[in-house]
Amino acid sequence: MPARMNRQIHLVKRPETIPTEEHFKFVEVPVPSLGENEVLIHNLYLSVDPYMRGRMSDQKSYVAPFNLNEKLVGGVVGEVVESSSSRFSKGDIVTGMLGWEEYSKATEKEIRKIDPNMAPVTTALGILGLTGLTAYFGIEDICRPKEGETVVVSGAAGAVGSTAGQIAKIFGARVVGIAGSDDKVNYIQKELGFDAAINYKTTDDIQAALEEACPNGVDAYFDNVGGEISDAVLNLLNKHARIAQCGAISSYNKPDDQGPRIQTKLIKSSALIKGFVVSDYSDRFKEGASNLGKWLSEGKLTYEETIVEGFENIPEAFLGLFKGTNRGKQLVKIGEPEYGEI
Amino acid sequence: MPARMNRQIHLVKRPETIPTEEHFKFVEVPVPSLGENEVLIHNLYLSVDPYMRGRMSDQKSYVAPFNLNEKLVGGVVGEVVESSSSRFSKGDIVTGMLGWEEYSKATEKEIRKIDPNMAPVTTALGILGLTGLTAYFGIEDICRPKEGETVVVSGAAGAVGSTAGQIAKIFGARVVGIAGSDDKVNYIQKELGFDAAINYKTTDDIQAALEEACPNGVDAYFDNVGGEISDAVLNLLNKHARIAQCGAISSYNKPDDQGPRIQTKLIKSSALIKGFVVSDYSDRFKEGASNLGKWLSEGKLTYEETIVEGFENIPEAFLGLFKGTNRGKQLVKIGEPEYGEI
Repeated sequence: MPARMNRQIHLVKRPETIPTEEHFKFVEVPVPSLGENEVLIHNLYLSVDPYMRGRMSDQKSYVAPFNLNEKLVGGVVGEVVESSSSRFSKGDIVTGMLGWEEYSKATEKEIRKIDPNMAPVTTALGILGLTGLTAYFGIEDICRPKEGETVVVSGAAGAVGSTAGQIAKIFGARVVGIAGSDDKVNYIQKELGFDAAINYKTTDDIQAALEEACPNGVDAYFDNVGGEISDAVLNLLNKHARIAQCGAISSYNKPDDQGPRIQTKLIKSSALIKGFVVSDYSDRFKEGASNLGKWLSEGKLTYEETIVEGFENIPEAFLGLFKGTNRGKQLVKIGEPEYGEI
Repeated sequence: MPARMNRQIHLVKRPETIPTEEHFKFVEVPVPSLGENEVLIHNLYLSVDPYMRGRMSDQKSYVAPFNLNEKLVGGVVGEVVESSSSRFSKGDIVTGMLGWEEYSKATEKEIRKIDPNMAPVTTALGILGLTGLTAYFGIEDICRPKEGETVVVSGAAGAVGSTAGQIAKIFGARVVGIAGSDDKVNYIQKELGFDAAINYKTTDDIQAALEEACPNGVDAYFDNVGGEISDAVLNLLNKHARIAQCGAISSYNKPDDQGPRIQTKLIKSSALIKGFVVSDYSDRFKEGASNLGKWLSEGKLTYEETIVEGFENIPEAFLGLFKGTNRGKQLVKIGEPEYGEI
C-alpha cells in the first residue's frame, strides 16, 4: 500500500517587504507515523493571522522565526484520526499550534480537546481562542476603560479589533472604530454597536474625522495598525491615556517605516503605550476564556468569520490580511471531519 | 520717593524652532505692593529647565502655555523682604513657582519655607525639589529596576538624569549613561558610579557602542532626549522593558521631527513607554522628598550645579540647556540675601 501523502506549505524565502506566492512552496511528504502517546490529526480549519508576518523575518522577537524550508505553523482545529494516547480518541475535535498541512502529528501536551456542542469549533481559533484573549487582555489590563470614557479601536472590523471594541462597550466606554470599507464601518456600528466609526480609506482628513468622532478626546486606544492612523489618534490623547499596542500591521511590510516622533506627545498627556502579546497573559487564560464564554452566551459579544475554502488558498488568505479583505476572523477550511459531526 | 523698580523677562514671541534672544524682552515695572497675607520675595536663584520650552509654544499640554507679553515663570529660591502674612517673616528663605523677575509677590499657598541649615538652599530647586522628585518617580514607579538589571539613562549628566542614574544604582541596577562630552562621561562614571557611559557626540556608531555597553540588553530606560539616541536604545529592549519618558529635548525645537516608527519594537518586547511629569505624583511628594533627603545625608546621592550669575544672563542659561552646556542642575544667581545668611 503506498504511503498516504500529506500536503504542507513551507517558507522558502524570507520576505523583505510584502510577502508573495514566491515565498511559499507546496510540498508533499508522507503522513507521519505515530510514536507512543501521540495523536494524528486531520486538520479542518487553519487560522491565518497578521503576527505570522513577524515570524517570517529573522529578527529577534517574542517568538522564534519560522525556519526556512520547513512547514509554517499556526492555530489549527482538526479531528483525531489515529491515536496512541489514552487521552485522545478517533473523532475527537482538538485545537493547537500545528502546521500548515493536511495532517499533523501531536503530543498530548500540544493539543486540547474542544466540545463541538458548546460553540462552533471555529470559535476555538477566534473569539474563544487566542484572538478573543488578545482583545480581552488588551482592553482589561492595558486600556482599562472607565464608564463613559472614549476608546478608539483601529483595525476595528478585524478579528481582534471587533472583539476589543465590544469588550470596551461591556466596560461602559464610548467606542470609536476605524476600519477600511463602508461595509466594515456599517458592520461595527450597526451589528456590533460601536458608537462611531470612520472609513479611513474614504476619509480625506482622518485627523478632522477623529476629532469629530471623539469630541472629548481619547482616553484609551486599542491599536492594531500603527502608521498614519495612529499618528492622528495620538494627537487627541487625554491626560493619562492608555494605548494597548497589539499590532502595527501598516508597518509589518515596511522595514524602514518612518513617522512623526511620539515621545513628546506621550509626555504632554502622561500617556502610556504598552506593547503586548497574548502569551504575556498565559497564567490568566482561564479567567479570560471564562469571561468571553459568558459574554458570548449572554449575547453581549458577537463575532464574524471570513472562511476561505481549500488548502491551496492558504497563502492568498494570509496575504489578504494585509489588503484588508477579511471581516472578523480569517480562516481557511481545508477538510471535512471523517468520524464525527461538527 | 521713586518706586523701587523690578526687572522682569517677558515672552514676546512664540519660538517655532530654537528660541533665541528675540523671543524674550527685558522689562522694568514697579515692585508690587502687598495686599493682605502676602509676601514680597527678593529672588536669589532661578531654575531654568528644558520643560519650559514646551510652555513657550501654544499647543495643548499638561500645563498651560506661558502668556505672551507677560513674565516667564519657573522655580525660584528667594528671601522674604516684606510680609503681611503671620506665617512668613523678613529674612525667611522660601521657594515656589515664581517669575523670571527680581522681586515676586506671593500668597501663602504659593511658597514654602526652606531651612538653610539642612542643606544648601539651591537643593530646593534641584535634588531635593522637583528635579530630584522627577528622577525618583521615573525610576521608582516606571523603570522599577530589579537587582542586576540594565538601566540606560539619556541626558545622564543633566540634573534629572544624573539623579535618576544614581537612584537606579541604589535599586541595585547596572546603569549605563549617555551624555554629550568626555567631561560629562567622566563625571557620571567616576563621580556618580555609573557602570558605563557613552559620549554620543564622539561615538561614530551609537548603536554598536550601546550594544557593547549593554551586553545583556536593556531592561529599563530613563529617557530625557528622544531622537536618534532613543532609536538605538529601543533596538535593545529586553522582554517587558520599561521606558520612563521624562523628556525628549532633541525634539522640542523640531516641530516636525520624524524617525523610525516604534510600535513594532514595543510589541516584540512587550515593552512599556510611560510619559510623565512630576506633578502626576504630587500626592507622593512627601515620600519622595524623604527618601531623597535620606540618601543625600547617607552619601548615596550626590549632585552638581552649574550656576550662571546675573539677571541679564537668564535667557542665555536657558538656551544653553539645548546646547548641553550644563552639568547637573542649571541655575541662575540673581541676588544676595539682605537679611540672613544662606
